[in-house]
Amino acid sequence: MPDADRFMTQAIALARDNVRKGGRPFGAVLVLDGEVLATGVNGVMETHDPTAHAELVAVRAAAMKRGSATLKGASVYASGHPCPMCLAAMRLAGITDIFYAYSNEDGAPYGLTSAPLYADLRKPFADQQMTFSYLPVRPEGEADIYDFWREMQQG
Amino acid sequence: MPDADRFMTQAIALARDNVRKGGRPFGAVLVLDGEVLATGVNGVMETHDPTAHAELVAVRAAAMKRGSATLKGASVYASGHPCPMCLAAMRLAGITDIFYAYSNEDGAPYGLTSAPLYADLRKPFADQQMTFSYLPVRPEGEADIYDFWREMQQG
Repeated sequence: MPDADRFMTQAIALARDNVRKGGRPFGAVLVLDGEVLATGVNGVMETHDPTAHAELVAVRAAAMKRGSATLKGASVYASGHPCPMCLAAMRLAGITDIFYAYSNEDGAPYGLTSAPLYADLRKPFADQQMTFSYLPVRPEGEADIYDFWREMQQG
Repeated sequence: MPDADRFMTQAIALARDNVRKGGRPFGAVLVLDGEVLATGVNGVMETHDPTAHAELVAVRAAAMKRGSATLKGASVYASGHPCPMCLAAMRLAGITDIFYAYSNEDGAPYGLTSAPLYADLRKPFADQQMTFSYLPVRPEGEADIYDFWREMQQG
């Protein structure tokens, strides 16, 4: 079996185990240098944490294991099509090699699709189903927080 | 001071405290029913977790505190313009009322902007700076994971 199929089979096995435990059918495997660095399953039902998606859990675990917020060169094998949050999380970590076994089309009959959220988030901010407001508060008598940060960076 | 300004002032104070501790200049306050339910600061430097952005940390904390992955009706006051991951995380939690004090334009001179990532993620998947591959592995002799999940749901 090719490596990619083997890692994806593992992601699907994780998803299946998670369903057995009462969770959602999502698993992810994060691979670096040909080895599994971390895995994740959807923990939303168990933890009530809406961000506990399989891919995001795997990214967190891998980064903390390596002691680095950057995971450049890693690949993620996700059982389901990553949602916008997870896709952005992987990108923030420098991961650009992503595989998924179930598309949003595969999941739609089960209600397991992030396509509607993708569609909304692709619109201009003002047209999305939210209010997104610039509220430029600048407390008086305090240094600007970005200037302060830059000063701290420069030691 | 109007409530919105007060909550934003708190988010900025959190960001400032975080810089003092060696972190990045980002804080967030999550408000439900007029009260602060949870707060967050950027913990990437401290934890090496690339997902430890202020808004995501606040969403996680609030959801786990309430024991609910849904935070409908909540508002988030973020010191900086939310990145695509945090925006999607808030939306997954049902939060549609979002304020920010520093825009991406305000942050750009400091390198504190998620505008380039937003621009890339708005492109069709095939045009983004990543490979995103459908790899429909279906292990033989095993029930489909989505069918299995539906069966478990129906008890």
